[in-house]
Amino acid sequence: MTDLSLPARLRAAADLTEARLVAALADAPLPGERLRPPRLLDAMRHGSLDGGKRLRPFLVIEAAALFGLAPEQAVTAGCALECVHCYSLIHDDLPSMDNDLLRRGRPTVHAAFGEATAILAGDSLLTLAFDLLSGPDAHPDPARRIELVRVLARASGLGGMAGGQILDLAAEGRFAGGTRLALTLGQIRDLQAMKTGALLAAAVDMGAVLGGAGPEARAALAAYGRAVGAAFQIADDILDLEGSAEAMGKAVGKDDGAGKATLVAALGRAAAGALLADLVRDAQAALIPFGARGAVLAEAARFVAERQA
Amino acid sequence: MTDLSLPARLRAAADLTEARLVAALADAPLPGERLRPPRLLDAMRHGSLDGGKRLRPFLVIEAAALFGLAPEQAVTAGCALECVHCYSLIHDDLPSMDNDLLRRGRPTVHAAFGEATAILAGDSLLTLAFDLLSGPDAHPDPARRIELVRVLARASGLGGMAGGQILDLAAEGRFAGGTRLALTLGQIRDLQAMKTGALLAAAVDMGAVLGGAGPEARAALAAYGRAVGAAFQIADDILDLEGSAEAMGKAVGKDDGAGKATLVAALGRAAAGALLADLVRDAQAALIPFGARGAVLAEAARFVAERQA
Repeated sequence: MTDLSLPARLRAAADLTEARLVAALADAPLPGERLRPPRLLDAMRHGSLDGGKRLRPFLVIEAAALFGLAPEQAVTAGCALECVHCYSLIHDDLPSMDNDLLRRGRPTVHAAFGEATAILAGDSLLTLAFDLLSGPDAHPDPARRIELVRVLARASGLGGMAGGQILDLAAEGRFAGGTRLALTLGQIRDLQAMKTGALLAAAVDMGAVLGGAGPEARAALAAYGRAVGAAFQIADDILDLEGSAEAMGKAVGKDDGAGKATLVAALGRAAAGALLADLVRDAQAALIPFGARGAVLAEAARFVAERQA
Repeated sequence: MTDLSLPARLRAAADLTEARLVAALADAPLPGERLRPPRLLDAMRHGSLDGGKRLRPFLVIEAAALFGLAPEQAVTAGCALECVHCYSLIHDDLPSMDNDLLRRGRPTVHAAFGEATAILAGDSLLTLAFDLLSGPDAHPDPARRIELVRVLARASGLGGMAGGQILDLAAEGRFAGGTRLALTLGQIRDLQAMKTGALLAAAVDMGAVLGGAGPEARAALAAYGRAVGAAFQIADDILDLEGSAEAMGKAVGKDDGAGKATLVAALGRAAAGALLADLVRDAQAALIPFGARGAVLAEAARFVAERQA
């Protein structure tokens, strides 16, 4: 599918991801499972199927494509990452976290199934991510599969995404009697690099691991991933400021009211826009070693920065 | 330590587990982590350190010992399993689940840190489990490490422990307007095999994987693990009926009030006690292929059935 346009490639990756997720969430138990409770399966499906742009699996697939892998050879790892992303949305939406009732234009999992089921659906999607990475369809070589586990776990846990979420709650003053904390620019960068950036960077790194990238190629892609991760969050914050709830499929304008720590709030809209353009250039510069093969990821960096939803 | 008594071996395994967990929860971020937020680390430590008998790591260590592995060669895998166990306790204790304020004689994580932090501490311990399995100190061979990931994920997820928790909540009538469900014996067995049994069986299976067990030895240990898992739950239910809150370090007598589906309630105390004795005999019979080397696990089966806390 090398000749397809970026939107077509995004759609193809999303379709492949959806099909793999549907298969992973089939009714029938796998060897080693006793049965799959229908209520839990339904909640997991509600929180993961038919949702979002599937940007993270797309990045896994396109990074792996730099090394000659077909999308089908990268989609299971992409699905594992997407399971982690979806679990994080389910848990972040909970009443004790961001207390959101709407996500992707639909009721959040706890709004539809109740809090206990939502917690367990998130837990089970996180667990499923590692189950997916453990099988030979993630990659035939066990050494690459276990490296995928390492990358995904480290990006998702206390020093990555989950750590970023607690920093975000702390910034809102949730642990200090409602007083919003004044973060430094460095602290906002840490928070966002962990909460959003880590998983996007992991997507690209997982593609590099799948492709058997050498140290230099892996480092170049890591630089790309960090820049795209930072750009994504700034674009998200600008969208929250300027986008419509209809296009976003969720509540917008919440950041200001909740006292969210964003670079847009700290730097102002104009400076944040300039930083966003710099990050896109950084991301594209990191791809130079890949020559013409890097064109899709270069365009993806621009897409991430300019998306409207 | 082959000559030590069972209590001494349990204590030695617990000490080794504690030291490995303390190291895994150090302040310093690992490569690939940006920083470790102190509040999240504290909550993870509260929910995992200085707690419990460490029965699951003990079973990993002793099953691996059947194949000549030293405790130090099995403790990282044991810690991974213990992280999953501890995460499950943190989430099960949440207000929207079992709503417990006391665990191991201390405030539960949400009682001490609030609900949002408790959810994230559980999520992060689950994630840490797979991080621990991804490194060479879990086992030098990547093929064995990825098989450990497979076993642990499948025992913990929707077809295992998490699935068992949702069946348990359903049995209490939590999704049907407060009406307790009348489960069949088979349904109670499914629930308990998933909620408690899956992780205990995984402990023994992970020891078998670490030790490079052939199919017959692995199947024998799986039979042992299933029997011990079932025995553990019956013993737990009897303790809930007859034990003291002081010895248990948590609220007891809750099962009856909450309408918990237990085999003790379904069969009566005498028949459940007879079943428990049968399960210990089943567990011990499964060890016959291992000859004298199986003595520690045989004694462990009796210990699980007769423990007083």
